[in-house]
Amino acid sequence: MKINVTNLQDRREKISDTVVLVDVLRSGTTIVMALKNGCKYIIPFKSIEMAKRAGRKLGPKAILVGEDYGLTPPGFDLNNSPSLVVKEKVKGKIICFRSSNLTRMLEKVRRLRRVKNILIGGLINAGALARYLKDISPQEVHIVICGNISRAFNLEDFIGAGCIVHRIKKAELTDTALAAMLAYKSPGSIDRIWQGSTARHAVKIGFERDIPLCIKESYVDIVPIYKDGRIISARER
Amino acid sequence: MKINVTNLQDRREKISDTVVLVDVLRSGTTIVMALKNGCKYIIPFKSIEMAKRAGRKLGPKAILVGEDYGLTPPGFDLNNSPSLVVKEKVKGKIICFRSSNLTRMLEKVRRLRRVKNILIGGLINAGALARYLKDISPQEVHIVICGNISRAFNLEDFIGAGCIVHRIKKAELTDTALAAMLAYKSPGSIDRIWQGSTARHAVKIGFERDIPLCIKESYVDIVPIYKDGRIISARER
Repeated sequence: MKINVTNLQDRREKISDTVVLVDVLRSGTTIVMALKNGCKYIIPFKSIEMAKRAGRKLGPKAILVGEDYGLTPPGFDLNNSPSLVVKEKVKGKIICFRSSNLTRMLEKVRRLRRVKNILIGGLINAGALARYLKDISPQEVHIVICGNISRAFNLEDFIGAGCIVHRIKKAELTDTALAAMLAYKSPGSIDRIWQGSTARHAVKIGFERDIPLCIKESYVDIVPIYKDGRIISARER
Repeated sequence: MKINVTNLQDRREKISDTVVLVDVLRSGTTIVMALKNGCKYIIPFKSIEMAKRAGRKLGPKAILVGEDYGLTPPGFDLNNSPSLVVKEKVKGKIICFRSSNLTRMLEKVRRLRRVKNILIGGLINAGALARYLKDISPQEVHIVICGNISRAFNLEDFIGAGCIVHRIKKAELTDTALAAMLAYKSPGSIDRIWQGSTARHAVKIGFERDIPLCIKESYVDIVPIYKDGRIISARER
């Protein structure tokens, strides 16, 4: 397996058939926790309006989860917060989901002709993602760091990507994959996430409490996959 | 001081007045060694033809140093190799220099209106670069990883940039600067450079012997600066 880490900024880059979208703060973590807590599936939407329209159509079996610049859009039930998608709120529900970066990156990736497998996560399910990748054993994989609203590169997703690379172990690594793995393996790397731009923004808008859960490495064994417009939990094979 | 690490791929990025071009394998190292060994100054050229024309005009006081895809262009005196620019060859000479990436990046940077200070180097002079930056103490600095011919990102320049960040110590770090510093501080990071794409290419074309010198950290106290079309050695203040 050849592993690349990318932020999809280079249009000439040929993306392989297997992609992992890494969004540590906070979408990737929220999706993992929602599936863990029994939500039926998640429908990602590009815009707030599209999510609302779908929510109205689905009625009481749906809830609206998401953010815009980190804040809960008017009319949404829950913020894009892994600590809010608890069993009492999400069990058996369909989540209409919208976030600034993950849904934008997902949209970008699903339009690429060669892409067949789209996995989603963060540090919280890095171990499960690595095991899943070793199981399906694609020739090549692109791990995508989703970035944040103001930057195409962000620290926590780079470290999250590096954690997945490290846990896959035997693979051919590109320069970006080597760099991400080194950053992850650097002493105290995970605590440094607090100094990154996304974490500082999360603290500023009052979501500091989410960060400890988001940076808990390999805490949940769920692999979200995107299939036919829905994000569901892949059974580990 | 605010520190950014960039590969200049994002056209919207505002580059500050102080820039450090990092090219570990091999241009940055060759330039440092040529200045250390007493060359008068270095004139960088975009193309092989332009360098040759200037060399002919300057006559015996000039020598032609450079590469194209790593190989010595026909008519050049020396390859872009830090172990070839010895005293016997370069002392008192003007070097007409052309390399695939550094001269291209230099061209890109010197056209930016705000840029006033352009420093050049690699791991070999990381300590001297950090001291110089602390001395001139700009509000903001952009450390540019020069990449290699086939990629906009390369491992050794990212680690080199991280080494400079680490040695500056007290500074405000962007996400890229934090990531580069973590990669550098990762145990065994410098040896990992051998696994990067540039090092593997250098080995393939027969310049393996240059790598140990290029990855010798803070071995030479020279700070090359670009001024009025020439690269000279800045006196440390």
